[in-house]
Amino acid sequence: MTHLLEKKIGGAELFKGKLLHAFRDTVELSNGQVAAREYVLHPGAVMVIPMLEDVQGGWELVLERQFRYPMERVMIEFPAGKLDPGEQSFQCAQRELREETGFRASSWAFAGSLHPVISYSTERIDIWFACGLIAGRRALDEGEFLDVFTATPTQLLEWCRNGTVTDAKTLVAAFWLQNFLSGAWTLDWSAGGC
Amino acid sequence: MTHLLEKKIGGAELFKGKLLHAFRDTVELSNGQVAAREYVLHPGAVMVIPMLEDVQGGWELVLERQFRYPMERVMIEFPAGKLDPGEQSFQCAQRELREETGFRASSWAFAGSLHPVISYSTERIDIWFACGLIAGRRALDEGEFLDVFTATPTQLLEWCRNGTVTDAKTLVAAFWLQNFLSGAWTLDWSAGGC
Repeated sequence: MTHLLEKKIGGAELFKGKLLHAFRDTVELSNGQVAAREYVLHPGAVMVIPMLEDVQGGWELVLERQFRYPMERVMIEFPAGKLDPGEQSFQCAQRELREETGFRASSWAFAGSLHPVISYSTERIDIWFACGLIAGRRALDEGEFLDVFTATPTQLLEWCRNGTVTDAKTLVAAFWLQNFLSGAWTLDWSAGGC
Repeated sequence: MTHLLEKKIGGAELFKGKLLHAFRDTVELSNGQVAAREYVLHPGAVMVIPMLEDVQGGWELVLERQFRYPMERVMIEFPAGKLDPGEQSFQCAQRELREETGFRASSWAFAGSLHPVISYSTERIDIWFACGLIAGRRALDEGEFLDVFTATPTQLLEWCRNGTVTDAKTLVAAFWLQNFLSGAWTLDWSAGGC
């Protein structure tokens, strides 16, 4: 596959904002041509799929409603957030779940990773399942507003089908959830399991 | 949900590159605080899930391998591309399928949309299924390198599970495909159907 490869021959920072940090690199293609590649540098992020057991032994998922400015609307999504400097993926998952929803989880499982925009961002999102949830107090960042609610897996899947849920990471989470709950895909739980 | 809303009170272009066009807006939160919102303006895109019928009546999917510079590696993904100015989603889907793979399709179905990065890009990707494929000649852009190959739905799902496929749009496509093929989710085909 060497004809597909691109080799960096130069690069410069495009700008550094409060959130966005962008670069333009110069690359050499396999045919010798030179091209520009612009992208956003991202520290990485996590998403948590928190599962609450209901009284019938079924599952309720902990979800959020949050206004997303580039979308100009409130979106339904699983708890998620960026890695702090030096933070590991699992620590970040625990922190974001606690800060955004108040829940702590007794069992965790790493499912996999996704890359939301392979054409213009280095962002990777690690996908964590969490269960054995113990409710606590939220600790939102200053100026952070989001509502926490629960829904059944059936309801979530219907929202994915009918266009109510369009957030890519949450769609990927639903894909994992569907295959975990059907038994098609297995998870390696940290303690006890779910 | 008015406590979640954010109101734009100002904005400025951060920079305009060859690919990235970024803005920083100022918003008022529901508590009266003012915050900055940085994001990339994107024209929108399409993804195509091209299904080839094999001799046993099963399906083979048309996929691509392409070097993605921000990922520093070759990624497996479904054909996709950005809308040209004034172009409609369906025209873009037909054009990208033909340019990147050479195939034309006799039947199309719109499945839904996804938003890859709701926190910092306006990008929306429309998901199209295509079948009744007729092979033809590719017409790649100057300096565009990508390999076309086929895989079965079973193979694709295994790659989603084991981390071979991490591109978010392709994971969402696999989610749609799994539910279409199982009969759980139906599609409204343009002609004949599949």
